[in-house]
Amino acid sequence: MKNVNNSKLRIIPLGGLEQIGMNITAFEFEDSIIVVDCGLSFPEDDMLGIDLVIPDVTYLKQNLSKVKGFVITHGHEDHIGALPYILKDINVPVYATRLTIALIEGKLKEHNMLKTTKRKVVKHGQSINLGQFRIEFIKTNHSIADASALAIYSPAGTVVHTGDFKVDYTPVYGDSIDLQRFGEIGKKGVLALMCDSTNAERPGVTMSEKSVGRTMDALFTEHCNSRIIVATFASNVDRVQQIINSAYKHNKKVVVEGRSMVNVITTAVELGYIRIPDHTLIDIEQLNNYPPEATVLITTGSQGESMAALSRMAQNLHRKVHIMPGDTVIFSSNPIPGNEKAVSKVINELSAKGANVIFQDAHVSGHACQEEIKLIYSLVHPKYALPVHGEYRHLKAQASIAAQLGIEKENIFVLQSGDVIEMDADSAKVVDKVHTGSIFVDGLGVGDVGNIVMRDRQHLAEDGIMIIALTLEKGSNVLLSGPDIVSRGFVYVRESEDLMEQARAVVYDAVEKCLERNITDWGKMKNVMKDALGDYIRKKTKRNPMILPVIMEV
Amino acid sequence: MKNVNNSKLRIIPLGGLEQIGMNITAFEFEDSIIVVDCGLSFPEDDMLGIDLVIPDVTYLKQNLSKVKGFVITHGHEDHIGALPYILKDINVPVYATRLTIALIEGKLKEHNMLKTTKRKVVKHGQSINLGQFRIEFIKTNHSIADASALAIYSPAGTVVHTGDFKVDYTPVYGDSIDLQRFGEIGKKGVLALMCDSTNAERPGVTMSEKSVGRTMDALFTEHCNSRIIVATFASNVDRVQQIINSAYKHNKKVVVEGRSMVNVITTAVELGYIRIPDHTLIDIEQLNNYPPEATVLITTGSQGESMAALSRMAQNLHRKVHIMPGDTVIFSSNPIPGNEKAVSKVINELSAKGANVIFQDAHVSGHACQEEIKLIYSLVHPKYALPVHGEYRHLKAQASIAAQLGIEKENIFVLQSGDVIEMDADSAKVVDKVHTGSIFVDGLGVGDVGNIVMRDRQHLAEDGIMIIALTLEKGSNVLLSGPDIVSRGFVYVRESEDLMEQARAVVYDAVEKCLERNITDWGKMKNVMKDALGDYIRKKTKRNPMILPVIMEV
Repeated sequence: MKNVNNSKLRIIPLGGLEQIGMNITAFEFEDSIIVVDCGLSFPEDDMLGIDLVIPDVTYLKQNLSKVKGFVITHGHEDHIGALPYILKDINVPVYATRLTIALIEGKLKEHNMLKTTKRKVVKHGQSINLGQFRIEFIKTNHSIADASALAIYSPAGTVVHTGDFKVDYTPVYGDSIDLQRFGEIGKKGVLALMCDSTNAERPGVTMSEKSVGRTMDALFTEHCNSRIIVATFASNVDRVQQIINSAYKHNKKVVVEGRSMVNVITTAVELGYIRIPDHTLIDIEQLNNYPPEATVLITTGSQGESMAALSRMAQNLHRKVHIMPGDTVIFSSNPIPGNEKAVSKVINELSAKGANVIFQDAHVSGHACQEEIKLIYSLVHPKYALPVHGEYRHLKAQASIAAQLGIEKENIFVLQSGDVIEMDADSAKVVDKVHTGSIFVDGLGVGDVGNIVMRDRQHLAEDGIMIIALTLEKGSNVLLSGPDIVSRGFVYVRESEDLMEQARAVVYDAVEKCLERNITDWGKMKNVMKDALGDYIRKKTKRNPMILPVIMEV
Repeated sequence: MKNVNNSKLRIIPLGGLEQIGMNITAFEFEDSIIVVDCGLSFPEDDMLGIDLVIPDVTYLKQNLSKVKGFVITHGHEDHIGALPYILKDINVPVYATRLTIALIEGKLKEHNMLKTTKRKVVKHGQSINLGQFRIEFIKTNHSIADASALAIYSPAGTVVHTGDFKVDYTPVYGDSIDLQRFGEIGKKGVLALMCDSTNAERPGVTMSEKSVGRTMDALFTEHCNSRIIVATFASNVDRVQQIINSAYKHNKKVVVEGRSMVNVITTAVELGYIRIPDHTLIDIEQLNNYPPEATVLITTGSQGESMAALSRMAQNLHRKVHIMPGDTVIFSSNPIPGNEKAVSKVINELSAKGANVIFQDAHVSGHACQEEIKLIYSLVHPKYALPVHGEYRHLKAQASIAAQLGIEKENIFVLQSGDVIEMDADSAKVVDKVHTGSIFVDGLGVGDVGNIVMRDRQHLAEDGIMIIALTLEKGSNVLLSGPDIVSRGFVYVRESEDLMEQARAVVYDAVEKCLERNITDWGKMKNVMKDALGDYIRKKTKRNPMILPVIMEV
């Protein structure tokens, strides 16, 4: 890879900075673009009615002919979830490790896109060539199996992207992170390191996944006379393996419950990422054939998601599993920020049904803490540091670690989505900003709910709507019918008859005045009615419902 | 106090159980009712547009002649916030310590109720007689000054209610909790203990408020060359005192910012709960007369509240304070569950402006942990345990502590709001359930937003609204105008013209069919239109907007 034209490498994060979720980064060198990850994010509280959020990839569409492929680090939603949506516009091959490809295929199948999408399984240690880039997949550890870091070789130099990672010297399945290879690549010279910032504020190291297995064993021993229900992330295949191991050791049958849990485990078993001893797994229908204390349920819902299996059990809405006094429920998870209250609600509901709820110590993070980040920096020894994967505070925390490790301050870049950083061995600089953004997915609609619709939903949610309906005579503008007022989400009308009657009178006066003054422009008339009714309602209630006049003409 | 008729004491929590907030408990003996606390709660995420929530006190209204007074343990919103609303219906005297009364008076003033409300300041150690009850105020420690436990003496026995408390052997202001008196009362025999459960899941003890002072001093020393902004709870008077002390020691001027912060500090200074050295406090207008590093701001907004001073500073919306690179911002608080994301947002915004944000170690809780709860149980040695103040999981955790300390299992009651527990020295039993609930306050409306309105708001928030308007001829039911469709919060209409055009055609067909078949009942007609349009929209978009047909008649 010779850099004949002395061109520079351009790195363009199109999402994933200043937020957890929606990870997607373009790497551009001359006529070649590769895209690392293509994730979604889950809607914030103020994104009313939205199912999920995907990145705006206008930049890729504008440079469609350059895009050579998607290179995916691992199979979490914030790294693969937007693929089916984006591939519809940018149909290029997808490269990832085996489990990651299998999880992507699950999504493509749902979207009927298996036939139209090229995909290729890459093994750790292997490289692929895409245009002017070569990309090497490097084994890492994370809270999902088959996670990879990437060494991205370009004529302008090498970039190491860690993906989401932790250092686990004693992983449950497969090898430990390939620290030797990080060292080897670092020794040859690395231009930039893009390292996971999620836990950059946390000192020390993240514990091994195996430590959860030991805790789980101890909990199973302590509660051996009780049915055990463990809630965890469906995608944490190693966690599920350890729960199964504990169950087997304690001679308990295992039921897997929750759609995504069943999906992932089925895939993981097929591919050999989970090994279940014979006669350990039973169908949920068989549950009643065993005494409760001889059974273990592994379930979704560890984040308090209202539709997940555990929440339905807690609310007595699950058709097949009923919480009984004496059940032990283990949350093998931490609440993701924003989910604390939902999790607490489920814990309360379970406790109220007599379950013994354990929500501490049965989880470790999948992300590197400060000492692990320092280790990777020391092995890779990059010229430039580009912290990724995190909110601003997390990126900033990693920047400060990088500075402590001796990286020049002007070589540390806390980027924003859309920033175009150009670099080679001599210099790195943010040279441009491209359009990025969030696109809302609501039902089948992708992008048809934008800021205006969202503002309306927020307004409607806050104070409801009042509709003014009236009929005018064509030409003469004589009031033939109405004005009627209908409201929803404003007040309980039957108990507010006076208010509604007064409101109607206010609007009637406003209409009459318009007609007297020959104001017949509908736009003007609507504004007069809106103002009159709005003022009246604000004065009487200190509320501000949406007011929508509808004029019919006969 | 002799129990001539062998009557029993009835305790009726009307709110505050299974939730944090809305604390209110009735104590009833024969013809006397006293009410302990009268708090509000803040709206949950799904209570759209609601400003605050107050308890339904139907039971008190039904027994109005019995109610002798409100006895308030301390001045936090979840203990005093509903008073102005409830006093409108139940105008009885209010009893509390000095700062508590002052804070209540602030609220009464806002509601123009100072003249109509009787109130009496009670000192720690003093008792008041209310009907058949005597109530003694006992000094405790909490995150607001002048907090009290109550010993409630009735002819059927004594109940000790801790209020919200912690054990602080080295409080910043005033005395430590009056443990001797707890012991003395306990020695004489206590029927029931109602103890704060907030931290009942946490082992160990809560640190002294003074420990925060030491941390604050250390932080002020470390960041002496920078402007310091400290965000904390307005009502934590001792915290504010310690920040002022640190500022004074470091020769910095102090600005107080945020409406509630200014209010509480003004009151606390007037009453002598805070002592500010001369020339330490400056007006916010004078801020620019000093070098930044010579100033400290104490501000509201530690919970990420979007309208609070700190959030406005972080978003560049504050008129007088602009965050500068090098500013040190200290969060002297922990996020209350549910506020984590909002706090994180503010931290990110502050960091992005170059501020150095410190959000750890500068706070202690105001609530007792497990060892303190054990201490109180050991001093009071009650026959019955009635854990209060907390979600179910917290109450349950305290119940388990009580059991560990040897209280008989059948004497431990994890109550729900509305439960009526009857007790005397011989027995205690839940004998009845009274009506309780949450009343929504929205603007000036108290209780006019109920379940139906809330369901409508949730529906509107999720998918918006489609309005069908049409005009029929009176008598003949000939379609004179429409059907027109107007939508809000559904799709961006200009980009969905086809969909809206099709939708109109679907409704038109439905109307025509009705008229052809002589279906002229408006209710039926509306349902036919709703179903037709709903089915069409669901099929095309997988969404479910509210559909509202409006029929006019000419």
